[in-house]
Amino acid sequence: MTQHTSRLCKGYFTKKESDGPLNSLKSDEAASGPKQGPTFQDGQRRVDYVLTYHIQKPRSFRRKTSHFGDYRILRSLRRSLSMMRGRDTPPPKEDPEVAAHKHRLDYHEDDKRFRQTEFEDNLREMGLELEKDEGNKIPGIGFLKIHAPWNVLCREAEFMKLKMPTKKVCTPMLKQRINLFIRKVTAPLHPKVEPNRAQNVKHLSHPFSREKQHLFDLSDRESFFDSKTRASIVSTIDLKFDLLKMTITGITSLLGNGVYTAAYPLHDTLFYPLLSCQILYEEWASYSVFYKYQPIGLIRKYFGEKIGLYFAWLGVYTQMLIPAAIVGAIVFLYGCATVDNDIPSMEICDPRNNITMCPLCDRACSYWKLKTACGTARASHLFDNPATVFFSIFMALWAAMFMEHWKRRQMRLNYIWDLTGFEEEEGHHRAEYEIQVMQKTLKKQDMSPKVNLSLFHEVEGHLLLSPLQVGVTFAVVFGVILYRISIRAALHMSSNPTARTNIRATVKGTAAVINLVIIIIMDEVYGALARWLTLLEVPKTDKSFEERLIIKTFVLKFANAFSPIVYLAFFRGRMVGRPGDYLYVIGSYRMEECAHAGCLMELCIQLCITMLGKQLIQNNLFEIGIPKIKKLIRRRKSDMDSQQQEDYNMTLQRHEKDHFLGPFVGLSPEYMEMIIQFGMVTLFVASFPLAPLFALLNNIIEIRLDAKKFVTEVRRPIAGSAKDIGIWYNLLRGLSKVAVIVNAFVISFTSDFIPRLVYQYMYSPDGSMHGFVNHTLSYFNVSDFQPGTAPLQPMHLGYEVQICRYKDYRETPWSNTPYDLSKEFWAILACRLAFVVVFQNVVMLMSDFVDWLIPDIPKDISLQIHKEKILMVELFMKEEEGKKLLRDSHAKQSPLQPRSRPASHTPSNC
Amino acid sequence: MTQHTSRLCKGYFTKKESDGPLNSLKSDEAASGPKQGPTFQDGQRRVDYVLTYHIQKPRSFRRKTSHFGDYRILRSLRRSLSMMRGRDTPPPKEDPEVAAHKHRLDYHEDDKRFRQTEFEDNLREMGLELEKDEGNKIPGIGFLKIHAPWNVLCREAEFMKLKMPTKKVCTPMLKQRINLFIRKVTAPLHPKVEPNRAQNVKHLSHPFSREKQHLFDLSDRESFFDSKTRASIVSTIDLKFDLLKMTITGITSLLGNGVYTAAYPLHDTLFYPLLSCQILYEEWASYSVFYKYQPIGLIRKYFGEKIGLYFAWLGVYTQMLIPAAIVGAIVFLYGCATVDNDIPSMEICDPRNNITMCPLCDRACSYWKLKTACGTARASHLFDNPATVFFSIFMALWAAMFMEHWKRRQMRLNYIWDLTGFEEEEGHHRAEYEIQVMQKTLKKQDMSPKVNLSLFHEVEGHLLLSPLQVGVTFAVVFGVILYRISIRAALHMSSNPTARTNIRATVKGTAAVINLVIIIIMDEVYGALARWLTLLEVPKTDKSFEERLIIKTFVLKFANAFSPIVYLAFFRGRMVGRPGDYLYVIGSYRMEECAHAGCLMELCIQLCITMLGKQLIQNNLFEIGIPKIKKLIRRRKSDMDSQQQEDYNMTLQRHEKDHFLGPFVGLSPEYMEMIIQFGMVTLFVASFPLAPLFALLNNIIEIRLDAKKFVTEVRRPIAGSAKDIGIWYNLLRGLSKVAVIVNAFVISFTSDFIPRLVYQYMYSPDGSMHGFVNHTLSYFNVSDFQPGTAPLQPMHLGYEVQICRYKDYRETPWSNTPYDLSKEFWAILACRLAFVVVFQNVVMLMSDFVDWLIPDIPKDISLQIHKEKILMVELFMKEEEGKKLLRDSHAKQSPLQPRSRPASHTPSNC
Repeated sequence: MTQHTSRLCKGYFTKKESDGPLNSLKSDEAASGPKQGPTFQDGQRRVDYVLTYHIQKPRSFRRKTSHFGDYRILRSLRRSLSMMRGRDTPPPKEDPEVAAHKHRLDYHEDDKRFRQTEFEDNLREMGLELEKDEGNKIPGIGFLKIHAPWNVLCREAEFMKLKMPTKKVCTPMLKQRINLFIRKVTAPLHPKVEPNRAQNVKHLSHPFSREKQHLFDLSDRESFFDSKTRASIVSTIDLKFDLLKMTITGITSLLGNGVYTAAYPLHDTLFYPLLSCQILYEEWASYSVFYKYQPIGLIRKYFGEKIGLYFAWLGVYTQMLIPAAIVGAIVFLYGCATVDNDIPSMEICDPRNNITMCPLCDRACSYWKLKTACGTARASHLFDNPATVFFSIFMALWAAMFMEHWKRRQMRLNYIWDLTGFEEEEGHHRAEYEIQVMQKTLKKQDMSPKVNLSLFHEVEGHLLLSPLQVGVTFAVVFGVILYRISIRAALHMSSNPTARTNIRATVKGTAAVINLVIIIIMDEVYGALARWLTLLEVPKTDKSFEERLIIKTFVLKFANAFSPIVYLAFFRGRMVGRPGDYLYVIGSYRMEECAHAGCLMELCIQLCITMLGKQLIQNNLFEIGIPKIKKLIRRRKSDMDSQQQEDYNMTLQRHEKDHFLGPFVGLSPEYMEMIIQFGMVTLFVASFPLAPLFALLNNIIEIRLDAKKFVTEVRRPIAGSAKDIGIWYNLLRGLSKVAVIVNAFVISFTSDFIPRLVYQYMYSPDGSMHGFVNHTLSYFNVSDFQPGTAPLQPMHLGYEVQICRYKDYRETPWSNTPYDLSKEFWAILACRLAFVVVFQNVVMLMSDFVDWLIPDIPKDISLQIHKEKILMVELFMKEEEGKKLLRDSHAKQSPLQPRSRPASHTPSNC
Repeated sequence: MTQHTSRLCKGYFTKKESDGPLNSLKSDEAASGPKQGPTFQDGQRRVDYVLTYHIQKPRSFRRKTSHFGDYRILRSLRRSLSMMRGRDTPPPKEDPEVAAHKHRLDYHEDDKRFRQTEFEDNLREMGLELEKDEGNKIPGIGFLKIHAPWNVLCREAEFMKLKMPTKKVCTPMLKQRINLFIRKVTAPLHPKVEPNRAQNVKHLSHPFSREKQHLFDLSDRESFFDSKTRASIVSTIDLKFDLLKMTITGITSLLGNGVYTAAYPLHDTLFYPLLSCQILYEEWASYSVFYKYQPIGLIRKYFGEKIGLYFAWLGVYTQMLIPAAIVGAIVFLYGCATVDNDIPSMEICDPRNNITMCPLCDRACSYWKLKTACGTARASHLFDNPATVFFSIFMALWAAMFMEHWKRRQMRLNYIWDLTGFEEEEGHHRAEYEIQVMQKTLKKQDMSPKVNLSLFHEVEGHLLLSPLQVGVTFAVVFGVILYRISIRAALHMSSNPTARTNIRATVKGTAAVINLVIIIIMDEVYGALARWLTLLEVPKTDKSFEERLIIKTFVLKFANAFSPIVYLAFFRGRMVGRPGDYLYVIGSYRMEECAHAGCLMELCIQLCITMLGKQLIQNNLFEIGIPKIKKLIRRRKSDMDSQQQEDYNMTLQRHEKDHFLGPFVGLSPEYMEMIIQFGMVTLFVASFPLAPLFALLNNIIEIRLDAKKFVTEVRRPIAGSAKDIGIWYNLLRGLSKVAVIVNAFVISFTSDFIPRLVYQYMYSPDGSMHGFVNHTLSYFNVSDFQPGTAPLQPMHLGYEVQICRYKDYRETPWSNTPYDLSKEFWAILACRLAFVVVFQNVVMLMSDFVDWLIPDIPKDISLQIHKEKILMVELFMKEEEGKKLLRDSHAKQSPLQPRSRPASHTPSNC
């Protein structure tokens, strides 16, 4: 078993991306076998970071250049595909805009070589050790392997104030007593990751300092800084050039200019360290462990805090979805169970109730019997019953609870990962920004216009954004509405009776599918649009670039996903007019009406199709299907059979293998997908209580899918430190606030909840719901039809119709003010609005109360932090004493190594 | 001038609190004159901190013990007075509850002495130097003067990671170009505080570390740590015992147990340092500079960040009030200007409109003419016009702007004060908590029940809080209502015609005054109640104690101040019933009705009286008047004349003078007062646009009043570090959110804004407001009066009344459903509610938008921080290089003092 999976882990390249054109390169297989791990040629110094570049004028590889060109095409194809499938935030170094930019800034080959040499000299000056590996396996690609020696690591760690574990250990008392039992019960749910060591002992950590070396356990210098830390130290050094010289010599700009093609740390191999890659593969990136918790500690250790936090967040979200899904399912079942007791739908279905309804369209449609709407009415009850009101309050509180729970989890992780006190960097300046500034400085030699200009850009971007987006969204929605209206009229007009009976279902179904397709297409368009708009703004730092891009993408994608739903929920069937005075758009198209029992049913279908469809198509097709197809195509093209391919892969070294993997494109697409889903779950939950269940099922797959991708399909990302999930938290918060308002409106305006209540308590003669249907229908005298709008077949029902009914609260034709809005209308409207006001404020208050009631920092964590602080005080006090003693006795010991006190190394009870 | 004020500053004790019983002590005046500043007897070591204690068995002072007793009574009197005047949060060391507790825990004198000795030994062990000064001037009081020598200061500064200025200087470019002109124009507004040095040069700061001593300018060891820093270092050492030993030996517990009576740092004297006390006195704590900015930097330098932030906040708030006050005044003037064009009040006042109104009370009152309400109607227009709607939107956005502005100001101060990266401490554990834990640990030796118990306490506190508060508040409001109803009926009953005409004015005025008095009394009661409830909870740390106390006090005081206003705004005149079917409370009291033109007018009077009254009474009477009176009484009691008193004061040393000052009771009362005021300004601004103006006038005085108090009337507080104003920010935020909702309701329900709009657009025959008054009045047939409620004098108006009118939207007596709520009622209600929904969400969205639009960190500051980071990187890189060079050349220089490079000390352009 271990043998098998370790082979997988090590050799996943075999499984995934075996490029065809390289089959002829099977030379020096033995010379540098994959066994020895990623080191320099001397087998000693570890490769901490790799830069790749095109080898200029590869004269001796003339035959292979065509292959190389082939490869380039493949790469650009892959890049555009990755753009297509929603990966809209590749890091600045890889994106096509920068590439386009690049052409303008492109240096001659000589200049490139000069800049390479300059950069490498800089690196050497900083103390890094370099080794070049120029394409004996992969033609045209040179590798610059970077090794950071011990003293460079120490220096940088001190400068970065990296918190490193000290020798002082203690056993944290994190709710141990209570948890012991729970832990036993849930044991099968926990991943098998060194269970005996992880929880019981914790090394106190302290910012690394060479002057305080004695605090740290430096016995094993090789493993004191793990591979993730080493890589991020090296990448910091690269970036420092940007910071120091304020010119475009840092790695980011060199990548942007094409001097280097890629920069990445290496994936761990089998033998080092502690098989963490293997454990991740077995206990995390596998569908068979879907029911288990994720090994978050290990993920963080391997990928850094940023990715660790993403998966932790995803885990918390999925976990929190379980109760929501259960309650949602119960609410739905309640609807199913009570459908036979629902008096209004019973009344509609009752054959004795012989109500004649007014025609649904002009001329073509005729009068119809209310009881034909029986099926829809019964189906509506499934989603429109008092339980949904309860459920939407529940979900609003659930969202608040989720946010709180996540805050606490984040604090806990911050404590466990020793991030307390860590300060987020603003990020280095973007090359584009620097170039712009330089251009401007050259032009004007003044600072203030720059600030104004960037402000102008920003405002421009925002201004551009809104009308454009509104316009496009509106056009799409309107198109779908037109489609629906016209197809319905056409179907009504046709004389085929089976087509007629299926009219509603057909229209609903096709419209929803069309919507879905448009949504998915527009999603990609909007992603590119957001990117373009952000580039126009020229944000200063990487961080602000990312934030702006996220906000724009979010606004556009959100509007895209939700505009049809919002239309269905709040606008459809509202501005219809009344028989004899319908509202017409563009000539003779009447505004759409809903089926008798409200639009809730259609809203529900739309939500269901959008959610399922988006998830199925985006996840399965884009994330699984397309890579599979690509692989198949490539295999066909390749001359090697599977065995040959595998053999070839065995000859490649770690850094060469990683070169063939896809670049890491950031976490934004993953977060974005989840946030849109969160919106689906919370925003219209009043109309679709099964949403949490669908989301839960999707996420269980999503976690493992993402895990697989990170472990086996992309290059190892540079570990980013982060205390929180940043802007995503704000977006989530915003969504859960908007959700309250949206749900209030859905309940009061889309559902029949309020009219029913009002009828029961204000108008019902016996306090029951009997007579409700009749109460909601107004009378229309057919002689009041406007000329040319009366039905062509007035005798369709078999008798002459004098008075028909329509769903509205209006005065009778025989009142003083016929067809005016009636008192009932205003009373119900007032009640609806009162419900909105009360619901919104009460639920918001409750959410704030939940927010306030649950402390942000878990009690045991704050206790623990307090205790660790005391331990550190003690440690330093003892050290001071020691120093004093030393000074007093004039001992000859080195001042950097005061005598070690055994007391401080035994585990304390902290 | 300088001579005069410096004498004031040094000798303010003269001006304020000269205690009588000490007049007989004029000995050794010359021996230790006040000139030499606060040092030990050797005249060298500075006094950084003072502890006072009662001298046990003062045998030789038998005659003076009576005085001493006298003094004790005076002190306790003063203490209870300070309790009375709203100073409800004395620090734990001084409060009466702890004192009560103390009696139980009181140690024998011997025990006290033992603990004193133990504590002093601890201090000496920590390296502090002590000197005792046992009562040669002040009988019964011993002083323990503490001096922190250089190496202790260094050690603690390193441990506290105090950011100290390095030698590296740079000139920040904080919007200099733009500001240069503004600065010139506003020059007279800036306080005269070393204007040439402060802004131009900034020392980069770095956490102090003895290993990096070479970074800092240590040439003047005396002034490297200023007096504020020294004091806070010493107080940290005191506290560390708590932290280290987990027992009650820290200074907090010793103060709680009465082992020591007080602990305070000393005020600066004339000669040291740089006359900052004098500048503060002249340029800050004086009414004559009311128009100037505050010297925030100096305040922070002298009092620490916490107090600095309070005054900075108060300054920003006052500044922001200026535009609000101006707009408010304009809105009010608009009301005044348009009062003659207001059609509804013209109609009411028009003598041709001969409308007979139904009686306002049963039996005693009779029918009345609408035109008698002319005056009220015209007055109402002043506050109830479309401009107020605009103003309340303006104020909601103003509140959002204010919060943002403050956040930015805070960030700027954080940068200037080098607080970026500073981590807030959780605060040390409270003695009471430790005792409780110890007791519990002794009982059960288990941890988990403690957690549960404290949770239980917390819940209990909250549960207790709500019904109690609701009950009391309700009783008070109800009492005032009853008073109003009964006095009105009584006045109506009386036959005195002048009394009758003045009925309304009299009732309104007296009721508002009664309310005010009750509010002020209950304020003190609630303050004590909140304190008691918080003590019941036994919070763990000082910080959580303070937060809980603040929240409780806030809730209680807020409810107290606003419940009558809320009653007036939303409940008065709502549930009145209608003629013939009035709603009665307790037998025959009819619910109150408002005057014809709405309750807005009365609300306005109430607000005006509450605001002005609270401010006048609490500020002037409590904060100025009572101390003056106390002083007067004391002077009378004292045998000395003014000259003698001054002479005596001249003999006292700094620490003795400070002993007579009042203890520093924390900032909570100051903040609380301002927050309640902020509530008044924002919450009901729709009904009282002059509120910001009143607040502005009050605050201009308040700033200087508080300044005087801090500089001359209380002991110097221990400088507390803080990055922000903590919980107060959250309360402000909460208030500005509630304000949106409250204003929405005031505009839509209390004012006539919506009915007017609805009339104009839905019912008016010609689209004007003509006929509005008639539209709002329903008809009542006098034959429908319930038996015994018809007026006793039906012919009061001189003719027989058949139909009278009342203000409501009901069906006519001759309709099918007489006196039912009419369609107009429901339509207007729907519009009112729609307005609430729209207003609330639009304004909230706009606030959030403002919040999002304005970056939290000012652009120049973030640029500056970035540049300073680069400078620090450069500095360290150079240092590394230097080290390397040193190592390479094997130079004999000390490793702690690498050769200084002049480049790093010249000011860079940062």
